Amino acid sequence: MNIESYFKITYGLYLVTSEAKGQKTGYVANTVFQVTANPPQFGISCNKENYSYQIISESGAFAFSILGEKASAGLIGEFGYRSGRELDKFKGVNYFAGPSGSPVVTDSSIAWFDCRVVQTIDVGSHVLFIGEALDNGVIDAETKPLTYAYYREVLKGFSPKNAPTYIDKEKIAPKDEVSTDNEVWQCQLCRYTYETDKGDPISGIPTGTRFEDLPDDWTCPICGADKLMFDRD
Amino acid sequence: MNIESYFKITYGLYLVTSEAKGQKTGYVANTVFQVTANPPQFGISCNKENYSYQIISESGAFAFSILGEKASAGLIGEFGYRSGRELDKFKGVNYFAGPSGSPVVTDSSIAWFDCRVVQTIDVGSHVLFIGEALDNGVIDAETKPLTYAYYREVLKGFSPKNAPTYIDKEKIAPKDEVSTDNEVWQCQLCRYTYETDKGDPISGIPTGTRFEDLPDDWTCPICGADKLMFDRD
Repeated sequence: MNIESYFKITYGLYLVTSEAKGQKTGYVANTVFQVTANPPQFGISCNKENYSYQIISESGAFAFSILGEKASAGLIGEFGYRSGRELDKFKGVNYFAGPSGSPVVTDSSIAWFDCRVVQTIDVGSHVLFIGEALDNGVIDAETKPLTYAYYREVLKGFSPKNAPTYIDKEKIAPKDEVSTDNEVWQCQLCRYTYETDKGDPISGIPTGTRFEDLPDDWTCPICGADKLMFDRD
Repeated sequence: MNIESYFKITYGLYLVTSEAKGQKTGYVANTVFQVTANPPQFGISCNKENYSYQIISESGAFAFSILGEKASAGLIGEFGYRSGRELDKFKGVNYFAGPSGSPVVTDSSIAWFDCRVVQTIDVGSHVLFIGEALDNGVIDAETKPLTYAYYREVLKGFSPKNAPTYIDKEKIAPKDEVSTDNEVWQCQLCRYTYETDKGDPISGIPTGTRFEDLPDDWTCPICGADKLMFDRD
């Protein structure tokens, strides 16, 4: 099997959210897809180990917000790489209750759909929830949707371990020689890599800045982890 | 429901193909998505009225080729807007037999997966076929994947009627005033629109060229239909 083939499949990035018995949770997904036009039905692939699986199973409903290219790295970090069992992901986040009762996040989002689950399909490590859309809306008509390719190439993000599209990075052969002065440090929480040669344009760190010279309060631009969470690659 | 929300969902474009009892067929899909990483499983949403539904049901297998940005409009037209019941879509097309027996198209494609169907799920007008990948490969590592957004915005394509993402164009409110000299002509086969103000850059027709002044041998850049298939909008 050729790992590079997987990177040719195009996906957007979404915040999938739900609420049951007062417990709100959500996660970052790339597998959100329309399965029928009439009625409008959407599928999501959700890892059985995720807290969201438990909450969506209980509530019978989910919403998804379509992230825009200007999406906050901190928001992606909180929703994508932390568990809703451990923290309230909605603290400080703007949302409203959709008709299904699911919390629809409006921060970093350009549009949303709210769905009632009509089928749950076991596909092994994940389930497919099929939801019929109850309502939807546009939040920001100008900003482009954030694609997984943009997230991976520009923001250097990777799928978290529980994603349907998770790739073991060890298996990817190095593509380019890097200069001997270039150092690569990887965030152990979200797998973002900091490279001397690239700096961190999101946080305004110029190219050529060595990892040890980064300010002490610098944090991972993707998940917000501090410098101690980084290992030299 | 807000129709514009649907256009914010990101998809690639794929040729889904299969063969049963010597009958090869295929269609253009945007709903191809990975549902699990281990084992690698993919879902496709297929209209029950499509010939491909019948062939995939019989063969228990499908392949998909990931179209690149340089994909041939003629190939998209043949696979996307014609039925395999009426014509042999593989005439003059390069392909090879994948391990499942499905014909893997290599023209216009940058990568491919070949899958064995492990589950078939009824979702109303469509079924979801869940396939486990048997093998895959990269055909063209340099060309970017063709996204549905690029197809829609740059190539002016629309979903065919049997697609899960079909949108009735009548329901879309006009966005901009056009100059009184601008004429819009629509292909009745694939819904591509020719506009005087935009010309047809794919075929080298400059902006400002009136539809009646197009060469007689000009054809729809998406599906290859001739001028007679166009109606004034």
